[in-house]
Amino acid sequence: MINARIRPLVETITPCIDDGRYAIKRVRNEDIRVRAVIISDGHDRLNARILFRALSTAEERALPADWSAYRSPQTAVWYNAPLEPDVNDEWVGHFRIKSEGLFVYTVEAWVDHFRTWRADIRKKFAAGQDVQVDMQAGIQMIQAARDRARTAGHEHNAATLDGYARELEIALRPSLSQADVDFATGLEIYTIMEEYSDRSLAARFDREQFVRVDRPLAGCSAWYELFPRSASRQPHRHGTFQDVIDHLPRIAAMGFDIVYLPPIHPIGHTFRKGPNNSLHPEPDDPGSPWAIGSEEGGHKSIHPELGDFEGFADLVRETNRLGMEIALDIAFQCSPDHPYVREHPEWFRKRADGSIQYAENPPKKYQDIYPLDFETTDPDGLWRELKSIFEFWIERGVKVFRVDNPHTKSFPFWKWALRSLKCDHPDVIFLAEAFTRPHLMYHLAKIGFTQSYTYFTWRNNAHDMRDYLTELTTTSVRDFYRPNFWPNTPDILHADLQTGGRAAFEMRFALAATLSPNYGIYGPAFELCVNTPREEGSEEYMDSEKYQIQNWDLQGPVNLTPLITHINRLRREHRALQSNTSLRFYESNNPHILAYSKHGTDPDDVLLMVVNMDPHHTQSAMIDFACQELGIDPTRPYTLRDEISGKTFTWQDCWNYVELNPHLSPVHIFTVSQTAPRQGRYA
Amino acid sequence: MINARIRPLVETITPCIDDGRYAIKRVRNEDIRVRAVIISDGHDRLNARILFRALSTAEERALPADWSAYRSPQTAVWYNAPLEPDVNDEWVGHFRIKSEGLFVYTVEAWVDHFRTWRADIRKKFAAGQDVQVDMQAGIQMIQAARDRARTAGHEHNAATLDGYARELEIALRPSLSQADVDFATGLEIYTIMEEYSDRSLAARFDREQFVRVDRPLAGCSAWYELFPRSASRQPHRHGTFQDVIDHLPRIAAMGFDIVYLPPIHPIGHTFRKGPNNSLHPEPDDPGSPWAIGSEEGGHKSIHPELGDFEGFADLVRETNRLGMEIALDIAFQCSPDHPYVREHPEWFRKRADGSIQYAENPPKKYQDIYPLDFETTDPDGLWRELKSIFEFWIERGVKVFRVDNPHTKSFPFWKWALRSLKCDHPDVIFLAEAFTRPHLMYHLAKIGFTQSYTYFTWRNNAHDMRDYLTELTTTSVRDFYRPNFWPNTPDILHADLQTGGRAAFEMRFALAATLSPNYGIYGPAFELCVNTPREEGSEEYMDSEKYQIQNWDLQGPVNLTPLITHINRLRREHRALQSNTSLRFYESNNPHILAYSKHGTDPDDVLLMVVNMDPHHTQSAMIDFACQELGIDPTRPYTLRDEISGKTFTWQDCWNYVELNPHLSPVHIFTVSQTAPRQGRYA
Repeated sequence: MINARIRPLVETITPCIDDGRYAIKRVRNEDIRVRAVIISDGHDRLNARILFRALSTAEERALPADWSAYRSPQTAVWYNAPLEPDVNDEWVGHFRIKSEGLFVYTVEAWVDHFRTWRADIRKKFAAGQDVQVDMQAGIQMIQAARDRARTAGHEHNAATLDGYARELEIALRPSLSQADVDFATGLEIYTIMEEYSDRSLAARFDREQFVRVDRPLAGCSAWYELFPRSASRQPHRHGTFQDVIDHLPRIAAMGFDIVYLPPIHPIGHTFRKGPNNSLHPEPDDPGSPWAIGSEEGGHKSIHPELGDFEGFADLVRETNRLGMEIALDIAFQCSPDHPYVREHPEWFRKRADGSIQYAENPPKKYQDIYPLDFETTDPDGLWRELKSIFEFWIERGVKVFRVDNPHTKSFPFWKWALRSLKCDHPDVIFLAEAFTRPHLMYHLAKIGFTQSYTYFTWRNNAHDMRDYLTELTTTSVRDFYRPNFWPNTPDILHADLQTGGRAAFEMRFALAATLSPNYGIYGPAFELCVNTPREEGSEEYMDSEKYQIQNWDLQGPVNLTPLITHINRLRREHRALQSNTSLRFYESNNPHILAYSKHGTDPDDVLLMVVNMDPHHTQSAMIDFACQELGIDPTRPYTLRDEISGKTFTWQDCWNYVELNPHLSPVHIFTVSQTAPRQGRYA
Repeated sequence: MINARIRPLVETITPCIDDGRYAIKRVRNEDIRVRAVIISDGHDRLNARILFRALSTAEERALPADWSAYRSPQTAVWYNAPLEPDVNDEWVGHFRIKSEGLFVYTVEAWVDHFRTWRADIRKKFAAGQDVQVDMQAGIQMIQAARDRARTAGHEHNAATLDGYARELEIALRPSLSQADVDFATGLEIYTIMEEYSDRSLAARFDREQFVRVDRPLAGCSAWYELFPRSASRQPHRHGTFQDVIDHLPRIAAMGFDIVYLPPIHPIGHTFRKGPNNSLHPEPDDPGSPWAIGSEEGGHKSIHPELGDFEGFADLVRETNRLGMEIALDIAFQCSPDHPYVREHPEWFRKRADGSIQYAENPPKKYQDIYPLDFETTDPDGLWRELKSIFEFWIERGVKVFRVDNPHTKSFPFWKWALRSLKCDHPDVIFLAEAFTRPHLMYHLAKIGFTQSYTYFTWRNNAHDMRDYLTELTTTSVRDFYRPNFWPNTPDILHADLQTGGRAAFEMRFALAATLSPNYGIYGPAFELCVNTPREEGSEEYMDSEKYQIQNWDLQGPVNLTPLITHINRLRREHRALQSNTSLRFYESNNPHILAYSKHGTDPDDVLLMVVNMDPHHTQSAMIDFACQELGIDPTRPYTLRDEISGKTFTWQDCWNYVELNPHLSPVHIFTVSQTAPRQGRYA
């Protein structure tokens, strides 16, 4: 039942994803800035606050499928944070949450008669009007607040309020002075009155908004992908988990956080692919790790040539010891040899002749892969089994999953599975590998993927890159979609890298690592600047590791390891690079030059990046570095130190000259500072 | 319970007001264009349609306060309209509703395996693949559709489908030809398969959207406001309803639809205001009609000097006979003499000394007015009584209400009262007179006001006017907020009119009547170009009718009646002017010249308006009339007839010259036509 005496209305709240159906995402201690439109009739003053609370695991488990239908119980205990009026009936405030998990927040607003009274009595007294009756009304409000304080058991404050009321009653006789009115409307009384403001007729926003608070790694991470089977340093020997362990110190030294492995499960034989995706493999070709399942097992088994569960446990332990984590690739598809095909034929679609439908994109056929059929007559069994694959590996110490092509599996399944897994394991991270249309990619993020692959790879000029980042960081997308930028993957060797030489690799790496707090590379192909495509016009690698074992020469002359190590160190040293909330682009008069800054909460933590997106030619530009927004006075000299070259520049004003020879370095990463002006005798 | 086999998702629908909390507004037979984002996993083809249905009065009465929580019963019968895929996972379609009332609409989407099959088999066959098994799958789908047709009792269609299946089965032996595949995937089979598409796993948008369908007057109306007490043609005699009746033929001849009367109730004595808002009235000053209530009655009584209920009935009858309607002013406030003050003191706020709180805006006091207190201890009694005032006058034949300052009364009250009144009286129209901040004005429209006053009066240059109309007609505002443009009101004599002479009146009238399908004037002050303010800098009229009786000289030399009559006739002749959906502005190289077009569904119904917004000087401009968007070929001559001056112009190309001397006419209203090119022998 509505209380018909309640007059205000919280009309909208932001952030708010699809009216509360999905949670916004934050990490621990990250700011949650709330904006609400609050209206009421008439001219009475309003007051408002943010309310927020944690859901218990039991509450989280009991949530309805449509979260926007959830209402906290009447007995719920809320934390609160103040809201202040901004322009045009909007109110703003913020709060932070210190622990992981699922939380709700909302806004409540009420008519604050004491605020109205305070403003009115001042105006009336200033106009020389008799305010005796008005002061009596104020005293009554203070007495009512005293009673609320007493009910709350706050005896000390109740006594204080009672004292104020008595003092003002005395002031009423014979008549009120300016000092009396000043005292009655002053900050001393106001502050305590705020605490006991009469919220009996408060209105709440009619939805509760959800925020999923993750651990910091979800918000800032550097990923390194490698194929374990190529990890052996002996040519032609199949790599093992132990070989991967041998690589870990090198990867840790470069500053990566996550070591991501393509599928480690038994590989099917039927229609196995040979090198370069050939349909005619040799008997000893290893096949694609994404053709999952054989008589040796499926998604809960380990490809025997990689090792066993003990070896895997060693790998996880050693990775963690070096401050990193293992990420596994979860690809929900089966080779014709997968045990599911025998045990659960009902999970696959049948052709009219009774055979199982293989993957196809007519006229192309992918007969080595059977997709799962989410229209199966046994959706419960299928859903539960797929979810249990994550649980199986979580039990074995894996907390980060890269999910292969999630957009080709049922979205309702993901919503259910990810919510359920996060409820039991709030520290698990899911990266969605969906390269598809925008609504699909965004929806996967809404329904629970922690991070997402992006179109970064195909944003190849400054204008497009700026547009894309503007969409990702300034629209509502920023609240639920955490981009993860990859300059390359085993599937994507972009033409830029094929033709741009080492400069292109450096440029794309610097862009990924400074534009996005989450990024990754597929190595060692990346740091070795491997750039031969399977054929002209293809984004596939020649002799791709997807179909064969590679032997990488890490001692060769071309190696980006020093640059990668350096930029990863900058990312760790500068909070500015650990989030995208402060990203700001600057005008440049050369379309090849992209300039942007990030800054941390510390006023000294200001970074200016300038990137030459043409890997072939030296480019120069005037850029409009609106440094005053960062607390730098453009009328005085300020210093830029290029953390790449070590060189120092002194600038003044906003428009300044930059020049980048991509063969020396395609990027400046400037730290910017302005020392205080010397108080010389002429100052 | 969710059905775990359902894969697609209708993610968003537009139009959609605050996620379905409020209804969009349309009039009978107006187009409702629907756009939906529909996604699903994988590459299967989708299908989708709009569903819509009427709510019965009983269903409407039983709606929850939060309409977004409403779901139609499982047994509900829906009409449907097709949706077609547009770009980026968006689908578009439209529907119309032929009767007044409250309706719901939603979108459903399903994986359409027949669509997928149809596209795939063509590609496979074209690539030379064996499609025997595929054709079997298609036959199975046709047979399943046959069974659905039979279940629906559509024997004829079932037989047709059965015939197709048999024909294709025969075609299977010995092997399929191009003609077989063409037939199987052709339009003949597809059309009937669409009708029996398998929707068993269809997904619906998780909210139903509301549309309030009003009678056409709600969407297009010309209002004429007059004070009955000044309607007498004899100086100093108080006007009566009979005097108003004498004015009706004149008002009808001008082409107005609605005759709007300020409050007609008894006027209070206590603190009555004198001429020009004086606090010291003479005994025979009539007071403000908005100081409602005396010992002679309140909101359900008639001021005796105007007449009685019989006279009022005569006025309503005579107005209707002339094709017009009476609009009453509903102002929920009371003079201290109002019967409510004695009978329901609990509906008013008390001061600390026990007296009733008069209206105030400190330090200003309005002691002739007691506001109602919506925080009263008797909200039910107050709400019911206020609603009954509307019902009282509806019973007496009034179907149009102009509501005074609704933003100073509780919004939850309006939401409840307007919804309840529209349920019982779907033909009633409510105009909100709220001149306040945007969120408040828009919210009043969302919760049920049919039309709304606007900022039109204060948009006084071409740039601001264009911006404002763009907000009103191209954002979601257009779906719930019907603007009503007033060049003047008894409270607002804008400086433009004070200083701009007759040209300013003509210009503002033409803007209001052509920019908005709903507009009004306060007469006879408007057509007589009365323009003296109470004092310099004031928007109040000198000797305002709000406080005294006026005697208008309708025979004087300055009279806009011919222009008003003419433009109202154009509004009736041209459907283009009866809606705002086609409004389009054009670039002009003179900031004083505003150019815009409207067009109807008839391709010949194209109007181009050009307005000189400087009432003092001749202004000329080149305007970029992008006429090709209206079906006019700019490479050939086309004809413009100025319906104001009667002059004809021939233009070619888009950029053309216009010149307006405001003292002759500040506005062109061009009808535009292009006769077909003569098929001469050189053509």
